[in-house]
Amino acid sequence: MIDWNKMIKMLLLERIKIMEEVKNKRLAKKSEDISKWYLELIEQAKLADYGPAKGTMIIRPYGYAIWENVVSAMDKMIKDSGAVNGYFPLFIPNSLFSKEKDHVAGFAPETAVVTYGGGEKLKDPLVVRPTSEMIMYESYAKWISSWRDLPMIINQWNNVVRWEKRTYPFLRTTEFLWQEGHGAHATHEESWERTIWGVEMYKKIYQDYFALDGLIGRKSESERFAGAIDTLPYEILVEGGKVLQSCTSHDLGQNFSKALGISFQDKDGKSEFVWQNSWGFSTRSIGALILGHGDDKGLVLPPKLAPVRITILPILGKDDKMVLDYCQKIKDFLDSEKSEFPGKVEVSLDDTKSYGFRVNESELLGIPIKITVGLKEIEDETVSVGFRLSGMEKITCKLEDVSKNTEKWLEEIQKKMFTNSQEFLQKNTYSAKDMDEFASIMKTTKGLIKAYWCEGKTCESNIKEATTASTRLKLLDAKKEDKTCVYCGKKAEYEWYFGQAY
Amino acid sequence: MIDWNKMIKMLLLERIKIMEEVKNKRLAKKSEDISKWYLELIEQAKLADYGPAKGTMIIRPYGYAIWENVVSAMDKMIKDSGAVNGYFPLFIPNSLFSKEKDHVAGFAPETAVVTYGGGEKLKDPLVVRPTSEMIMYESYAKWISSWRDLPMIINQWNNVVRWEKRTYPFLRTTEFLWQEGHGAHATHEESWERTIWGVEMYKKIYQDYFALDGLIGRKSESERFAGAIDTLPYEILVEGGKVLQSCTSHDLGQNFSKALGISFQDKDGKSEFVWQNSWGFSTRSIGALILGHGDDKGLVLPPKLAPVRITILPILGKDDKMVLDYCQKIKDFLDSEKSEFPGKVEVSLDDTKSYGFRVNESELLGIPIKITVGLKEIEDETVSVGFRLSGMEKITCKLEDVSKNTEKWLEEIQKKMFTNSQEFLQKNTYSAKDMDEFASIMKTTKGLIKAYWCEGKTCESNIKEATTASTRLKLLDAKKEDKTCVYCGKKAEYEWYFGQAY
Repeated sequence: MIDWNKMIKMLLLERIKIMEEVKNKRLAKKSEDISKWYLELIEQAKLADYGPAKGTMIIRPYGYAIWENVVSAMDKMIKDSGAVNGYFPLFIPNSLFSKEKDHVAGFAPETAVVTYGGGEKLKDPLVVRPTSEMIMYESYAKWISSWRDLPMIINQWNNVVRWEKRTYPFLRTTEFLWQEGHGAHATHEESWERTIWGVEMYKKIYQDYFALDGLIGRKSESERFAGAIDTLPYEILVEGGKVLQSCTSHDLGQNFSKALGISFQDKDGKSEFVWQNSWGFSTRSIGALILGHGDDKGLVLPPKLAPVRITILPILGKDDKMVLDYCQKIKDFLDSEKSEFPGKVEVSLDDTKSYGFRVNESELLGIPIKITVGLKEIEDETVSVGFRLSGMEKITCKLEDVSKNTEKWLEEIQKKMFTNSQEFLQKNTYSAKDMDEFASIMKTTKGLIKAYWCEGKTCESNIKEATTASTRLKLLDAKKEDKTCVYCGKKAEYEWYFGQAY
Repeated sequence: MIDWNKMIKMLLLERIKIMEEVKNKRLAKKSEDISKWYLELIEQAKLADYGPAKGTMIIRPYGYAIWENVVSAMDKMIKDSGAVNGYFPLFIPNSLFSKEKDHVAGFAPETAVVTYGGGEKLKDPLVVRPTSEMIMYESYAKWISSWRDLPMIINQWNNVVRWEKRTYPFLRTTEFLWQEGHGAHATHEESWERTIWGVEMYKKIYQDYFALDGLIGRKSESERFAGAIDTLPYEILVEGGKVLQSCTSHDLGQNFSKALGISFQDKDGKSEFVWQNSWGFSTRSIGALILGHGDDKGLVLPPKLAPVRITILPILGKDDKMVLDYCQKIKDFLDSEKSEFPGKVEVSLDDTKSYGFRVNESELLGIPIKITVGLKEIEDETVSVGFRLSGMEKITCKLEDVSKNTEKWLEEIQKKMFTNSQEFLQKNTYSAKDMDEFASIMKTTKGLIKAYWCEGKTCESNIKEATTASTRLKLLDAKKEDKTCVYCGKKAEYEWYFGQAY
């Protein structure tokens, strides 16, 4: 006799599984609509969600775990360099915020302002920090009096608010998380060294952890940080040919120290203004990570930042207990050995999801290594190993070699992802002799375009108007040459990189 | 012939040193004026400074390093318990903030409100989060649909703003740093277990890391968190006899889930509202640490939280190089072995400061162990070891035993500090049979007073009015008894703890 109840239950379960799989495959194609793909991926991989206030973002646990891995690596580098962490207030009185003229001109249009506190209207409204130069340097002025107090290099991990017209998860949000480091030094030379240190440290993080190649250089005057005399970015080219300013380090000269009176007695007893720098790296980097490595199946996470480094997938059916025990044994193996990689080892156990769904899910989440276990593997005392990164073949590995090999594979994946990124950058960097060539590249592939530019603001904005490409940077070691501007034909001394900003 | 130049230089240097020492000894006495002592200590030990906006605080690197040690220990406990970290926005639209009536009634009077963003007046003003229940639970309502999504336990480390009339560094500031964990569960029983877990975890942190004994219990109705059905604090008694509510864990019942519609389908397909809890621990704890252990010489830090666990003090004079080399050797010894304690090993080298000044400084900073090195120690191949905690005698230790012994000493100090705190709490806990006895204790020593109370709000406020003591808590396992209220003489079922709030 047929057990109709059981039959219906089975069919219903099957239906759920199919629906899940369909839903799981709904991700837009990166190559077809990168913008749609990006937003859908963030939602489906549960990286982030939209906050109720305009342009704000909720960083969900999976996205936050990536950020925690970044913070942990970078915080160590910052401390090893001799900087110390501290915390400065969120609120900057408007009267203080307005003391450095370029700074306030640059930031005032994008601030959020508190006008009521404890039910009363405030006499001096409070700016919610868009960056902490003003509030930190007021303290620097109090704390610094002698050359013995220098250098003073304080870093903070905090949240900042910039009122953006068009927002985009991770890449441009009203509130974001970052670190901001601020150095005060006795000489310009020493401050410049710290400015360079900042961007070189970020490069190391991007290359060694994010596996994202990019370029360090100097921003044009119009693209500088408000109040800086030089801004050094790390620019990353992503699929679709747009370029992302992924972090910056600023040489602030003596602009702020003069505006706020941060002076010190030097060894000869003479009073001097300090030389300053600031450097910031934000959750925008997670946007770069998604765009830089993701593919049509979802995220592809570099092992050094992946919240889960290995997922173990049991093929369930007959003898489930045996399969699950074997999976647990592998997990125990892997957990018992110290890994260089911070991500967890997970057994994907949810039996309400089909095997196929769980495979898709692990791909969506960008988990670097997938270990599959079925009866065949148990019989052979092996495991089947698959890799998220395309171009790496499936492997069968003996059980006793798993822990030893996974570390090797994770390292290999990390390296390969960076090599891919290097190749991508090289392949998509062009030179343009004239505006025809320039415009034609921007119309087709886009990418980074090298061209000589006279450094005039009119040419800069005309090029942007005509092609959507803005100046990205000039290399730090760019050679002075005798060339002509790609736009106006007048004298141009340096080669610049152009591209469409994200 | 007298070298006048050298003579003058020497005298000037001597003068600086004397001035430093005088300045260093200016700290008020804790026993004479604890309030003045507290503020001066925070300034002199460079723990914090005042921010420019009313009631805000700058956490200086030395103070922040203590907080980082707390965060690092607690974050691990939170993750080990199965909770995950995330990040929710700073701004809560006023319309959303107002959805739970008790919550908004409790918090609205102390909010900071953003009314302008990007130069435009906002239609729906933004409340700067005083706590994140509303903004987190709006997402919980979106993310939770089935019993499979439960429990959902998300924690965040962030900054919150509460507009306080009277502020006090660390203890009560307009902006403070904390963690807030938020659990949503299928049953009240499970949610209550997590509420208890929260306060038990805090107790472990306070006892094992802060070395501060205290009491866990239940708050009276009038002292509950706005929106909670039960609030469990850890209350710490400090010198001077006042009591500090040092953290809290709340059972929120279904108040928020009903206000925001956070429901789930249970295993039988029935729709139910979730049961919730939230638990928070803030930088207020640093205030407890200062008050709880500090003495007339300055801070006394428990080894598990001290930013510097050992300071090595060279006695400079003749043969400085030899002394400094020996100090470095000790530091290398200590650094090469893994310590259970997170603080650094420092060599106090600043030769512009006299030996006496550096000793005072290490005491002001509360560094647990001081190793002194002079020619005598080098000759004997020993070190002289002094301890910050009073009651521990100076020791001479063989060079080769230093690393082994310091771990042992640090453990001993940590334990001894907790024992001191336990004894202090016991010694200053009283029972009051009637209001005369109650008032007399509050007039003299203050402390924690056990008394039977009828749980009527009128008696509660009358007692406070008459004695400055408010209800602190009722023990979780308090026995139901047949007693009379210390104030009104009517029936009282439970013994309560009273004390003057910090």
